[in-house]
Amino acid sequence: MIRITIIGSGNVAQHLIKAFTKSEVVEIVEVYSRKKETLASLIEFDKIVNVFEDLKEADLYIIAVSDKSIPEVSKQLPFHNRIVVHTSGAASLDVIDSKNRKGVFYPLQTFSKNKEVDFSTIPLCLEAENTFDFRVLESVAKSISNVVFPINSDQRKALHVAAVFVNNFTNHLYQIGEEICKEHKLPFEILKPLIRETAEKIQTLEPIDAQTGPAKRHDSTTIEAHLEYLTNENQKNIYKILTQSIQNNGKKL
Amino acid sequence: MIRITIIGSGNVAQHLIKAFTKSEVVEIVEVYSRKKETLASLIEFDKIVNVFEDLKEADLYIIAVSDKSIPEVSKQLPFHNRIVVHTSGAASLDVIDSKNRKGVFYPLQTFSKNKEVDFSTIPLCLEAENTFDFRVLESVAKSISNVVFPINSDQRKALHVAAVFVNNFTNHLYQIGEEICKEHKLPFEILKPLIRETAEKIQTLEPIDAQTGPAKRHDSTTIEAHLEYLTNENQKNIYKILTQSIQNNGKKL
Repeated sequence: MIRITIIGSGNVAQHLIKAFTKSEVVEIVEVYSRKKETLASLIEFDKIVNVFEDLKEADLYIIAVSDKSIPEVSKQLPFHNRIVVHTSGAASLDVIDSKNRKGVFYPLQTFSKNKEVDFSTIPLCLEAENTFDFRVLESVAKSISNVVFPINSDQRKALHVAAVFVNNFTNHLYQIGEEICKEHKLPFEILKPLIRETAEKIQTLEPIDAQTGPAKRHDSTTIEAHLEYLTNENQKNIYKILTQSIQNNGKKL
Repeated sequence: MIRITIIGSGNVAQHLIKAFTKSEVVEIVEVYSRKKETLASLIEFDKIVNVFEDLKEADLYIIAVSDKSIPEVSKQLPFHNRIVVHTSGAASLDVIDSKNRKGVFYPLQTFSKNKEVDFSTIPLCLEAENTFDFRVLESVAKSISNVVFPINSDQRKALHVAAVFVNNFTNHLYQIGEEICKEHKLPFEILKPLIRETAEKIQTLEPIDAQTGPAKRHDSTTIEAHLEYLTNENQKNIYKILTQSIQNNGKKL
């Protein structure tokens, strides 16, 4: 068994605890949470510690806290020369205090408290300072996911930006769709099959081949009618800039 | 049996033919296609006509052609006082020639030639000029879909704009995600589980509650790092305007 300790009590930490609890290769030695109660429903209470000095020995320490807290947390760890990784897409390897062997264990997924996820399909992006440490991370990652990638720091930055586009920004477009529905007394339900199919389509088609709509068709009558119909200036701006981007795209082909 | 005729041979027409072929309530009398061969794999060849004057009597004629062709096609129909509907989200009821009883049969979904769809989950948005005609449309719609809504012309316009945001624009964000991956020699595959989960999440959570990321957290360090990292001016602009929109949103709460 590979013995791991998870530090943090937020969304990512909680989903990792749930996933590793089911693993037959990995054993959770302990979890660190400032408030022990936060994790009480997920793991035996005597495995929860709230004092760094109490942390026992483990093969791997996974820091799953907010980006800005990683340096401070990693400094407070009362040991050295062990494998310590963070789970951030945006933070560099070097935010981890160099008294330990640094690494990254970045699950490329969106986590919410009230939404279960199937960890086996979540890409885990791994980085380590040497081959031995990488193999440890890889064994741990493969025990919960079928999709494991070695990703260097520059690639991870690119992935994180890409994830902002396909997740954060996409979700915001869903919200605008909901706003338009509400304004016109339409249930948001009516858009959900379209939202689902839009995401499903690119599982097999290239996004550029899946593109449809008035911008792609250069249908200026419909585009102008839409812009006239929208009363919210912010929605209008977003409509214009994305329509233009789709059309410029076409030109590049 | 309700007897229907489909006019057109594009994506929507083809998906409708496939769906109605399975229906036990609706019988396809004929389909009209300028080139008979286009539909030869979907329906018996002797049911395909390419001359409007040859069209037989039916209870309902569904015009599934491009928006700009609807007026011309509806004018050429060699009969009057029958139910004639179009399938467009953007076109008004009145683009149909008034010699017939006008209606709309708008499937709110994205159709591609090489991607099968499950029609039973596709919202069908119906409009007619009187109750009798509406009931006919409703029976036809319910024979292929479990999600049927009466939608007036103003609501349909709103839906069509909303669909552009959640489908066309979202797909374009996927494409930007793919471009960023390619630039950094990453497989687009790695983003697909995130894309799928982003769409799944809002099936149960409100989009505003599903929102995560640096914009939502007002994490200006990450936002600035991302803007510095992006070299494409178009991607930068989209990043800025959507980040701002997410942040202004927060203020309105």
